[in-house]
Amino acid sequence: MASRTPSNGHPLKKSKAKRRAASKADTSEPKRVYSWGPAVCEGHAGMGDLLGGKGANMAEMCRLGLPVPPGFTITTEVSIEFLKDGGAFPPGLEPEVARALAQLEQSLDKRFGDAEDPLLVSVRSGARVSMPGMMDTVLNLGLNDRTVEGLAKKSQNRRFAFDAYRRFVQMYGDVVLNVRPADGEDECPFHHALEAKKRARGVEQDTDLTATDLEQLVAEFKTIVRSHTGTEFPQDPVQQLWGAIAAVFRSWNNERAVAYRQMNRIPTAWGTAVSVVAMVYGNLGEDSGTGVAFTRDPSSGEKRFYGEYLPNAQGEDVVAGVRTPLAIEHLERTQPKAWRELLRIQKLLERHYRDMQDLEFTIQEGQLFMLQCRAGKRTGFAAVRIAVDLVKERRISPKEALLRVEPEALEQLLRPVFDRAQLEAARRAGRRLTRGLNAGPGAATGRIAFTPLEAVRRAKAGEPVVLVRIETSPEDIRGMQAAVGILTARGGMTSHAALVARQMGRVCVAGAGALEIETAQKRLRVGSHTLVEGDWISIDGNSGEVYAGQIATQPSEVLASLLADKPAPDPSPIVAAYHQLLAWADRERRMDVRTNADQGDQAATAVALGAEGIGLCRTEHMFFGERKIDAVREMILAEDAAARAAALAKLLPLQRADFAAIFKAMTGFPVTVRSLDPPLHEFLPHEPAQVAELADTLGVSLERLTAKIHSLAETNPMLGHRGCRLGISYPEITRTQARALFEAAIDVLEETGRAPTPEIMIPLVATARELELQVELVHAEAKAVFAARGRSVPYLVGTMIELPRAALVANRIAEHADFFSFGTNDLTQTTYGISRDDAGKFIPLYVEQEIFESDPFVSLDTDGVGRLLEIACEGGRATRPDLKLGICGEHGGDPRSIDFCERMGLDYVSCSPFRVPIARLAAAQATLRRAAAGS
Amino acid sequence: MASRTPSNGHPLKKSKAKRRAASKADTSEPKRVYSWGPAVCEGHAGMGDLLGGKGANMAEMCRLGLPVPPGFTITTEVSIEFLKDGGAFPPGLEPEVARALAQLEQSLDKRFGDAEDPLLVSVRSGARVSMPGMMDTVLNLGLNDRTVEGLAKKSQNRRFAFDAYRRFVQMYGDVVLNVRPADGEDECPFHHALEAKKRARGVEQDTDLTATDLEQLVAEFKTIVRSHTGTEFPQDPVQQLWGAIAAVFRSWNNERAVAYRQMNRIPTAWGTAVSVVAMVYGNLGEDSGTGVAFTRDPSSGEKRFYGEYLPNAQGEDVVAGVRTPLAIEHLERTQPKAWRELLRIQKLLERHYRDMQDLEFTIQEGQLFMLQCRAGKRTGFAAVRIAVDLVKERRISPKEALLRVEPEALEQLLRPVFDRAQLEAARRAGRRLTRGLNAGPGAATGRIAFTPLEAVRRAKAGEPVVLVRIETSPEDIRGMQAAVGILTARGGMTSHAALVARQMGRVCVAGAGALEIETAQKRLRVGSHTLVEGDWISIDGNSGEVYAGQIATQPSEVLASLLADKPAPDPSPIVAAYHQLLAWADRERRMDVRTNADQGDQAATAVALGAEGIGLCRTEHMFFGERKIDAVREMILAEDAAARAAALAKLLPLQRADFAAIFKAMTGFPVTVRSLDPPLHEFLPHEPAQVAELADTLGVSLERLTAKIHSLAETNPMLGHRGCRLGISYPEITRTQARALFEAAIDVLEETGRAPTPEIMIPLVATARELELQVELVHAEAKAVFAARGRSVPYLVGTMIELPRAALVANRIAEHADFFSFGTNDLTQTTYGISRDDAGKFIPLYVEQEIFESDPFVSLDTDGVGRLLEIACEGGRATRPDLKLGICGEHGGDPRSIDFCERMGLDYVSCSPFRVPIARLAAAQATLRRAAAGS
Repeated sequence: MASRTPSNGHPLKKSKAKRRAASKADTSEPKRVYSWGPAVCEGHAGMGDLLGGKGANMAEMCRLGLPVPPGFTITTEVSIEFLKDGGAFPPGLEPEVARALAQLEQSLDKRFGDAEDPLLVSVRSGARVSMPGMMDTVLNLGLNDRTVEGLAKKSQNRRFAFDAYRRFVQMYGDVVLNVRPADGEDECPFHHALEAKKRARGVEQDTDLTATDLEQLVAEFKTIVRSHTGTEFPQDPVQQLWGAIAAVFRSWNNERAVAYRQMNRIPTAWGTAVSVVAMVYGNLGEDSGTGVAFTRDPSSGEKRFYGEYLPNAQGEDVVAGVRTPLAIEHLERTQPKAWRELLRIQKLLERHYRDMQDLEFTIQEGQLFMLQCRAGKRTGFAAVRIAVDLVKERRISPKEALLRVEPEALEQLLRPVFDRAQLEAARRAGRRLTRGLNAGPGAATGRIAFTPLEAVRRAKAGEPVVLVRIETSPEDIRGMQAAVGILTARGGMTSHAALVARQMGRVCVAGAGALEIETAQKRLRVGSHTLVEGDWISIDGNSGEVYAGQIATQPSEVLASLLADKPAPDPSPIVAAYHQLLAWADRERRMDVRTNADQGDQAATAVALGAEGIGLCRTEHMFFGERKIDAVREMILAEDAAARAAALAKLLPLQRADFAAIFKAMTGFPVTVRSLDPPLHEFLPHEPAQVAELADTLGVSLERLTAKIHSLAETNPMLGHRGCRLGISYPEITRTQARALFEAAIDVLEETGRAPTPEIMIPLVATARELELQVELVHAEAKAVFAARGRSVPYLVGTMIELPRAALVANRIAEHADFFSFGTNDLTQTTYGISRDDAGKFIPLYVEQEIFESDPFVSLDTDGVGRLLEIACEGGRATRPDLKLGICGEHGGDPRSIDFCERMGLDYVSCSPFRVPIARLAAAQATLRRAAAGS
Repeated sequence: MASRTPSNGHPLKKSKAKRRAASKADTSEPKRVYSWGPAVCEGHAGMGDLLGGKGANMAEMCRLGLPVPPGFTITTEVSIEFLKDGGAFPPGLEPEVARALAQLEQSLDKRFGDAEDPLLVSVRSGARVSMPGMMDTVLNLGLNDRTVEGLAKKSQNRRFAFDAYRRFVQMYGDVVLNVRPADGEDECPFHHALEAKKRARGVEQDTDLTATDLEQLVAEFKTIVRSHTGTEFPQDPVQQLWGAIAAVFRSWNNERAVAYRQMNRIPTAWGTAVSVVAMVYGNLGEDSGTGVAFTRDPSSGEKRFYGEYLPNAQGEDVVAGVRTPLAIEHLERTQPKAWRELLRIQKLLERHYRDMQDLEFTIQEGQLFMLQCRAGKRTGFAAVRIAVDLVKERRISPKEALLRVEPEALEQLLRPVFDRAQLEAARRAGRRLTRGLNAGPGAATGRIAFTPLEAVRRAKAGEPVVLVRIETSPEDIRGMQAAVGILTARGGMTSHAALVARQMGRVCVAGAGALEIETAQKRLRVGSHTLVEGDWISIDGNSGEVYAGQIATQPSEVLASLLADKPAPDPSPIVAAYHQLLAWADRERRMDVRTNADQGDQAATAVALGAEGIGLCRTEHMFFGERKIDAVREMILAEDAAARAAALAKLLPLQRADFAAIFKAMTGFPVTVRSLDPPLHEFLPHEPAQVAELADTLGVSLERLTAKIHSLAETNPMLGHRGCRLGISYPEITRTQARALFEAAIDVLEETGRAPTPEIMIPLVATARELELQVELVHAEAKAVFAARGRSVPYLVGTMIELPRAALVANRIAEHADFFSFGTNDLTQTTYGISRDDAGKFIPLYVEQEIFESDPFVSLDTDGVGRLLEIACEGGRATRPDLKLGICGEHGGDPRSIDFCERMGLDYVSCSPFRVPIARLAAAQATLRRAAAGS
């Protein structure tokens, strides 16, 4: 019937279509509608991009011969066209839908709008990836004042028919016709009318209303629609259908959906498909019902069929939580035939898709219908265990298993957890307050502080603190640092609190909207609970749950196993699965994974977590010890090179001891040590009292000290007198650091018989000459120390590439470098011209407005910063083909950035100790992906 | 005799030479020694790179048949080899020198070391470009206890011979044997011995000493040598020669020479040649003498032979200034033959070299010998006049004339000058105090301030101030800004004071070492003068001279002619020459020259100076007017968009008036207006008193205002919430600015009948999306204004490229831009990671250590920042071939950077008004050079 060439419509559309046609060799329109059913099945599971997950999987289940109601899917491409053109359907869509609808009618032998036996459909959204509950759906479409009678007659259940109709009017009114709650109200007018009816009838449950009640309610609902929209509720089923399709398309851009996409980095350009599915009914009586199930436990990963079932209900009732569902095992007794069928199907689907599945089904008068299947969402624990179990079951290969686990999910396995018994007790005692977004994994318990200042004060007094804020701002940083956990009432997964908490490794629950925080009154109310400053509170950053009172935390099982001196004889399934998965990862990955650590104990932890060396040891972090800081300050205040040398002489043995501790913890691994980097004023106090105290300690006048502090102050310290600029201005600093390092290396060699392999790294190089001058100093010290001690160790000297200029002239810098390490934190700051300290003011807005796809300080900006990396790699290798290349910015622990590093062919990534396992898995995935891409 | 293959020497040398030989196809050594004389002339003027200016020009004069003493030159390459190898002569040099020396002996029929008639030589330095007085020279070499007797006999002048010998011992002792003044003394021991001898003999002048006196002095000098070096004064002339050659090579790296190279950007790698020249004597009696001359007046450029002559003297006497030389015209009477010959030669040389020449000559017993010729150094005035005159005289073409004038030299012609009469009076009254480096051109007179604070105080009170400092530091910036002139005792042409003064356009004399500045006592002493705070002082930044007291300044003749309403009927030669040169420049250059100006009067001045539009109008500069700043502050403190809009509504008419004034001043030219750029806290006060006052004015609580100021403070404001980030956060700011601009444009169109051509520029763009969002706002305002007014003007919307990322993704940014303007100030800051505000601490050191060839904020870093420009130009043009490209950073007024812009094919450069003429000339030179390079 319908042709594939543009037919009718708006003149502008025509000319646009013509233009498009003219620019294509093939003038045919793309196929826009795909049907499935007993006669035809046009889609399959591999077409998720075009049909959405829901549409593709319905088609696939149909192909597998499973019981699915027939239907058809309008492609994601149509939604993009629709939204681009301001809400106009592309020409040619209408006849295609009409044809699919006719096919549907034929397969069920029912007619849309038939007064005797009407076809009813659901209109469902479905994007490429699952966005649960974010977009809209309309059920029971096709009902009107005439067809409802037909449904009543055919089902012999008038109450059912009018219940379906009042549900449809309510849903359609809400989703399509925008009948929303009045200002200041939470509930829509339909809800009020329903409640009024129940009060009038003296009943509690919706199910207690009679057919007559519902018939009256339908009339009232239609009146509500008329008064809100000024028109009658549409009676034409075809008009209803197009209205619902348009509304589902529009719901791609509703607030929730946009926020969810940002959080999950889903491109707006993907769009959503719409599936039109013949209705089946779970609310036809006690032998009907609806349920959701997982082929394995989505929380622990255990291999057991797991789910919930609600008799005599439609899907929306499960979601709304009006009635408490039953455990799925209940079906075994009440619906043995459907139960056996369901067990068969869940096994078949998991085997077919080779992954844990999330299923939706309806039982209509004893007959099972599958309404959805998709890869099930799962916790990090479950992801690891399921992937490893599927290998054991020979369903997937180890390589596939590696690609199945989001690297970030491993964090859950390593962060502290609540003591199970105490958590259960808290739940039983009704201490669960609310649930927010799981913005920073782990569990934390502490006393409430409502201001950053209070958080710092309590932390100093030795108390664990949970900082509770309406939302956080950049001024809260010190308080966030002082807290063990952060809880906010506002803000999403990319809010300031969430971003900073994850960066700092703090437990965080964000956007817990039920909290009423009264900062001035130092009071927090939620439901019937009131908590005040100093009260205990506990937050679970894995689940987003918030509890009143204290709940003890403990290291996770996995972490405990890693830090144990020897492996447990009988590890738990999750511990065993973790070790197995990471062993596979280590076998597959090409890049080494190092850690950023400054102290011996940090280094030892990192090794336990799988680090293969240190990629960044910040020597200045060693400077803040009690004795050291005095010597450092003396050095800074020295008036000439001789006085500076004297102060440095005091520092030398202290720094040597620090280096020795790190070398010992890292035996057999390379250790990259960066020479002094931060501007000197960071080592001086700024509070008047502390300045006076320091003047006293150093025996200098307060005036001179103040003047010195003043003269060291900088307008833009990030771009100031720091990095190798210090080593150029005060070569004795570089010399002393190099000497301490080489002496420590020889000490450790003599003590252990094994030579450490230091790699000395010069920071903030912008020109080849800077590096050349600093490298000369390092070599001279090495020569002197080796000569004096009569022994030597192998070592490298290289540089951080952390300024755009360094990347641009990398070919020349490589003349003096054994290695490059990309300092992508500073490189991102300078490439974008954004100070991380100050960016809190606009980065959330930038992410929201899609100016940034994601925060470039979290995930490497491959277009800009990445291009500089590419230029630097090319330039460096052109000069020196064997140049060692690594990354030590925080991106070194970010999976997407690690993937980019693999594509650049870097030798290693380096990240904070607790991200080492994540990086190991991400590196393995990157290797596998690169191999698959054939590069 | 000598072979060209490596012969003898150190084993290492041999192997090195072998390596070099092995790596070359041709195994022959390079020619290292070039002779000139009656028999042979191996060099010529085109060989300056290899033979140095002196050697090349001696050879050239020899070729021209002019009277030059014969000699030979050792190439610059040898000095580089010598210095690289730590002071070892390359093998093969010795025989080559021996052969050249033999040739020299033959041509004069004299023998080196001959006891009867010895050959004496001078050993002279000579780099590619003249470095007057920076390196060492040894005269009378070849004298010893035996040859001095032969010289005495041959010259029949025993006094002359021993005078030559004692000069030689002194010079050789100083230059080669390092006999230097004792600690704490200014004069060397030879000087003390000479003075003692004069005292003993009761005479005043050296010339009053007898032959016997001098013979005794020689003995004393040799004793001094023995006591200082532990060895005898060398008697072997060949040993003397090699010692002198080595010393001259070493002098390439003496302190003075290194400083001079830095100042003049002469690469260390060029090295110096050494010329060995047969001696002629200007001290053989009254018919002998020595002189220097210029073929035209090097100060005014007037065409007249100009010079000085000292009878019975050697060259060093002229330099030492012991005796006052005579005007060169004196020769006409005393040495008529030599005078005629000299006149003939100076004409011939100027004609031959087609430029004004600086000549050195000696007359030996009536016979003229030319000892040097080179292009003469000249003032900016002279450079312009000579270039134009040479065209009139048909010696050079206008294109050549354009290439003859350093663009920077034009600045001298435009800056204020001292009133001639008052200057002469000051000189006559002995008020000339000293002379330093001419670090910032122009003349300034003001009251002395010894501290920045005092300078600010006096400037506020309306006094003109000269800031006098031992040296300046970054903390002095506000004082420097407040002063009309800056005078320092320490620091070179690239010192902080010099750099900043030139950037600010302040008159500056730097490094006036004779000044004793006692800041604490607020006193300045120089010679017998003492000046205190508040005293008048006058400094000439063109000559470096410093005068006590007030000397009135006036606009230069050239500037007066430019600002005059109509051209003077009979302009002075320099005014006429300036106009002629710039007319040629405008004819040749390809790029337009615009100006950076924010106000109508600035714009008018810039047009008078030749600007063809505005490249950067910083709208925020308009914000600081009395009424405007209040509205701006109100806008910043607004709590919501509505309050912000109300404050902006007040600002709109004020900004519209500002724009209208600029459009009128720039009729017919494009005007680029940048939307708000600086962080908002720059508009708020920070002193408590001012904050309180503002709180009062705005009617907000002091607490709230303080909190707001605090919340706007940034750690790195350069990388903070500024540029288009403001326009994204507060779209109403961009909208208001765009509206004011378009309304002003329509106002001016209606008033004048001519449409302004605004180009709206969005700053600090890092992503295409930022620009897209801002451009949409601008277009919407344009549409609204044009519709409301029923008229329109043509306009463009573009962006600054001032962040590395913008350059890297320029292809995408160009999708939304009509033009790019390179903001190279910020681009340099971010590419290097250097804050200009803080760089004063290390940039001077970096220039000194040759880490930076020059300050990258003055002259564009072509390797790093330049590469980004190239990437941006390519990317932008790939997307949009007609993309307009310009530069508006301060580099737009720097000739070397302008040359780079020409090579990039930019459409225009933009600079501050007073640099417009410089940019016009530099752009013309760039076009000519690019054409010559055939690109």
